[in-house]
Amino acid sequence: MYRTHTCGELRKEHSGSEVTLSGWIQRVRRLGGMTFIDLRDRYGITQLVIDEKATKSLQQQVDDLGREFVIQATGKVLERESKNSKIPTGDVEVDITELTILSPSAVPPFTIQTDTDGGDELRMKYRYLDLRRDVVRENLVLRSKMAVAIRNYLDAQQFIETETPVLIKSTPEGARDFIVPSRMNQGEFYALPQSPQVFKQLLMVAGFDRYYQIVKCFRDEDLRADRQPEFTQIDCEMAFVEQNDVLETFEGLTRHLFKLLKGIDPGTFVRMPYAEAMEKYGSDKPDMRFGMIFNNMTEIAKGKDFGIFNSAEYIVAIAVDGAADYSRKQLDELTKFVQRPQVGAKGMVYVKYNTDGTFKSSVDKFYDQNDLKTWVEACNAKPGDLLLLLSGEKTCTLQQMSALRLEMGKQLGLLDKNTFKPMWVTDFPLLEWDEDTKRFHAMHHPFTAPKPEDLEMLNTNPGAVRANAYDLVINGVEIGGGSVRIFDSALQAKMFNLLGFTKEQAEAQFGFLMNAFKYGAPPHAGIAFGFDRLVSLFAGLDSIRDVIAFPKNNSGRDIMIESPSPITQEQLDELGLKINIKK
Amino acid sequence: MYRTHTCGELRKEHSGSEVTLSGWIQRVRRLGGMTFIDLRDRYGITQLVIDEKATKSLQQQVDDLGREFVIQATGKVLERESKNSKIPTGDVEVDITELTILSPSAVPPFTIQTDTDGGDELRMKYRYLDLRRDVVRENLVLRSKMAVAIRNYLDAQQFIETETPVLIKSTPEGARDFIVPSRMNQGEFYALPQSPQVFKQLLMVAGFDRYYQIVKCFRDEDLRADRQPEFTQIDCEMAFVEQNDVLETFEGLTRHLFKLLKGIDPGTFVRMPYAEAMEKYGSDKPDMRFGMIFNNMTEIAKGKDFGIFNSAEYIVAIAVDGAADYSRKQLDELTKFVQRPQVGAKGMVYVKYNTDGTFKSSVDKFYDQNDLKTWVEACNAKPGDLLLLLSGEKTCTLQQMSALRLEMGKQLGLLDKNTFKPMWVTDFPLLEWDEDTKRFHAMHHPFTAPKPEDLEMLNTNPGAVRANAYDLVINGVEIGGGSVRIFDSALQAKMFNLLGFTKEQAEAQFGFLMNAFKYGAPPHAGIAFGFDRLVSLFAGLDSIRDVIAFPKNNSGRDIMIESPSPITQEQLDELGLKINIKK
Repeated sequence: MYRTHTCGELRKEHSGSEVTLSGWIQRVRRLGGMTFIDLRDRYGITQLVIDEKATKSLQQQVDDLGREFVIQATGKVLERESKNSKIPTGDVEVDITELTILSPSAVPPFTIQTDTDGGDELRMKYRYLDLRRDVVRENLVLRSKMAVAIRNYLDAQQFIETETPVLIKSTPEGARDFIVPSRMNQGEFYALPQSPQVFKQLLMVAGFDRYYQIVKCFRDEDLRADRQPEFTQIDCEMAFVEQNDVLETFEGLTRHLFKLLKGIDPGTFVRMPYAEAMEKYGSDKPDMRFGMIFNNMTEIAKGKDFGIFNSAEYIVAIAVDGAADYSRKQLDELTKFVQRPQVGAKGMVYVKYNTDGTFKSSVDKFYDQNDLKTWVEACNAKPGDLLLLLSGEKTCTLQQMSALRLEMGKQLGLLDKNTFKPMWVTDFPLLEWDEDTKRFHAMHHPFTAPKPEDLEMLNTNPGAVRANAYDLVINGVEIGGGSVRIFDSALQAKMFNLLGFTKEQAEAQFGFLMNAFKYGAPPHAGIAFGFDRLVSLFAGLDSIRDVIAFPKNNSGRDIMIESPSPITQEQLDELGLKINIKK
Repeated sequence: MYRTHTCGELRKEHSGSEVTLSGWIQRVRRLGGMTFIDLRDRYGITQLVIDEKATKSLQQQVDDLGREFVIQATGKVLERESKNSKIPTGDVEVDITELTILSPSAVPPFTIQTDTDGGDELRMKYRYLDLRRDVVRENLVLRSKMAVAIRNYLDAQQFIETETPVLIKSTPEGARDFIVPSRMNQGEFYALPQSPQVFKQLLMVAGFDRYYQIVKCFRDEDLRADRQPEFTQIDCEMAFVEQNDVLETFEGLTRHLFKLLKGIDPGTFVRMPYAEAMEKYGSDKPDMRFGMIFNNMTEIAKGKDFGIFNSAEYIVAIAVDGAADYSRKQLDELTKFVQRPQVGAKGMVYVKYNTDGTFKSSVDKFYDQNDLKTWVEACNAKPGDLLLLLSGEKTCTLQQMSALRLEMGKQLGLLDKNTFKPMWVTDFPLLEWDEDTKRFHAMHHPFTAPKPEDLEMLNTNPGAVRANAYDLVINGVEIGGGSVRIFDSALQAKMFNLLGFTKEQAEAQFGFLMNAFKYGAPPHAGIAFGFDRLVSLFAGLDSIRDVIAFPKNNSGRDIMIESPSPITQEQLDELGLKINIKK
């Protein structure tokens, strides 16, 4: 037996008992003839003591020890004279009589502690050492706990966990698939799923009623900082439900997770139509931790000699709480911020609503105190607030103001990581016009049902049709999204047609789904949560990479195992493939 | 709202209340002016009644209904006059006043009932309809329940569920990998994991202490009846443990599953070394539901004039309980059975131990009654039993007798699907000699630790070295297997060398693992259960295909979605690949 207890287990009550511990050496301190070893495992740290009265051979063994050695040590638990209240085992130490080195360790390439000296690349190459750090492992323990909590919640709600296939079929619609050559059927290919979408819908046709799965999905995209080629979804589908049933079920799940894992009641989940979110926050994923709701100033601010406003399609303002004392320099920097290419505004107008009731603005030339008074009233601002205005083409202006609002939230310290404001954004547009391809794309996916009241417009004004689609947004992050599905093969065929599929293409790609709808498909709806994002939100992290045990870098490489890598000619031959790189 | 209750919910207590149900029409019966509809969903079947007094329009609607239509129906719950005790809702029916057809259905290609008329191919093509059948869905519900039970058990035992990557690196050792071309790194490839083996070992090096995952794995093999290119493993690893710790932990899990899901205590798990299993059952996965343990007759049966025995390396016998009355025809058929090429014996010898104490054998010419008496005594047979003997080269003869033993178990009805006899087979050989390649292969995998007492023989007689490897076998099916791992980079390097890897190959394939071992690797061991097999065993099925929602056929094809399939030239170009099929 390698251990009688873990390194997190011993307490005062164990004093006097003989124990064996195994673990990693966090550090060795030598004080006179005494040696103190901090022995670490996943469960904690326990102090070992090698007394000056220890045997010579034990003393010699101790001399060889270094950081990250794996040892097994046996001895008697003693109550410490000077206790360490910072760790749960701090009341005791173990007086060692026997010690075995199970594995020596070379000097690690970086220090194994919370504040490590290792850079990103190095820590990824030695990920197995990085994972030894408490801060990193705790994220993955949280992930494990969340997965168990999610499954138990959904299981109790009668959801059937069903595994859908990983080797499926490539569909050129949407993002790029990873493909897998078939050896038994040379010249043919499987694809890895971007989501189990059609399979979960088929499970509804099959009468499974409620399906869920925590499942790996794959997208061969050019990677941004917070994307991974493989990622994990909490994937769900329900039959005989309307949108409200889905929202309530998954609000329940989210609420349960907050309560169980963070001890938090996140309050009511606001439900906000997409159009309202765009008008009020300039974003379909508003951060609700703070206000600064947009005010449409288009009517109110026009008609004076300020040409920029007069020629603008849209003028929008936010009132920033208590920021009237922003200095000239701070305001200049805000102007520079909105002028950055990533934001793209031409300029910014401000109005300081001074605490003495007067106004000072960057457009005092064109607007008198009375004009500015109507502005602050329209924005419900109070003395001490700062009004910021942007103008221009409507969609762009709203987006620019969204960026400015988030920047102000950041500057004023309103993005508290321990505050959680979940909300539903609903009624997304069904279709998006794509200028490049000159055709409509599905905003959610081609299986999303239009709102019944907008059905007529599919023929007359498809771009205005709203979908029964919804996103769960928490603190400005899209955590999940879903929709009520089409369950009628005629409507599904019409959708494919609108999306530019020929009848043959639709049949080749999704014939089995449309065929399935001919045999009694129930009304159904579903949702998928980004599990990596949800965990990183709960962990208070900015990147999903830290909640993935073995992530890939931004080039899609695993630099620890050095993958992807070349394969043998024999493997290529068996697959009937040849490498054909065009320089 | 589509329903107030499910089709499995209504009882006598609901009588008088107004309810709305939704579901599929199982059947419609018309009796005089009355119509009875069996409405089905996942939860059960409820009888709907459309009275002769119903409105004309309702009557007309009912005329249009057919099997598998999805309808929504509202009415009052009535206690039935003639109750149906076979179904939980059999005390009531719903007197319908309002009915909506949610989805009509074409006539299904086969009947949706337990004994369907659909053939295998047809049911696979319309898998979404096959899954509507209770018998099929119940297997998948069992699978879901087992997964939840397994996770909760392991979670309570401090295992951390950790997702390992799906896009990994190809290793030519072992079975064939599925590979995934990289677009961002043209000419390079990922591979899909055959198991998360190295990652779970790295998690032990990382100090995770206990890891588990229910995970998809992939093997590009020529498929036998009970293999799938993608399959699911319960994958586990533990640090600071010896073999016994692993066996006890997973015996605990197995016992828990039997108790929770089958209400069974499967008794003690016998632990049997591989060598003993081979001698006693001719198999490393003995079916322990019945006896017929092998008796080595090599010494006892030689020395008379029966040349076949005299020249045989090995002679083995089983005593078949109460089968002395087997007819000549039955015995001839047994001889034919062992002579089938799949079994491969030259012939079979029998001895009938008649109830009157006399013997009748197929070798009476060579052996007298006294000889045969010593035989039956050696086999512990009693009057009424039948002795069956095979002889020849030892390994082959044992295998042939194993096949004969199973056949006898089948003929005598001893393979009861409701009896479960789990056992551990231990101490497998570390290496297997491969005649084709003239080198050793790892019997389990290259990371398996030799038994410490056999370590010396690695240099002198590698083929005789036993491994700290173990299989969980239930009813003759290998449910899982695992081993204590090597955690020393020098020993690991030696193993790679024995397996014919050059130093460069070992470094290129597993350098990161051997490198990891340099930074303090703990002793560790693990196991993986075949989840599909475990579920099919619990479900009393012979094939894993019936516990997989969307399985592939024996050519690795999904005939429902028609995959694998060709991809576009654009996709090939992006991957830097060309199809190059050599006819």
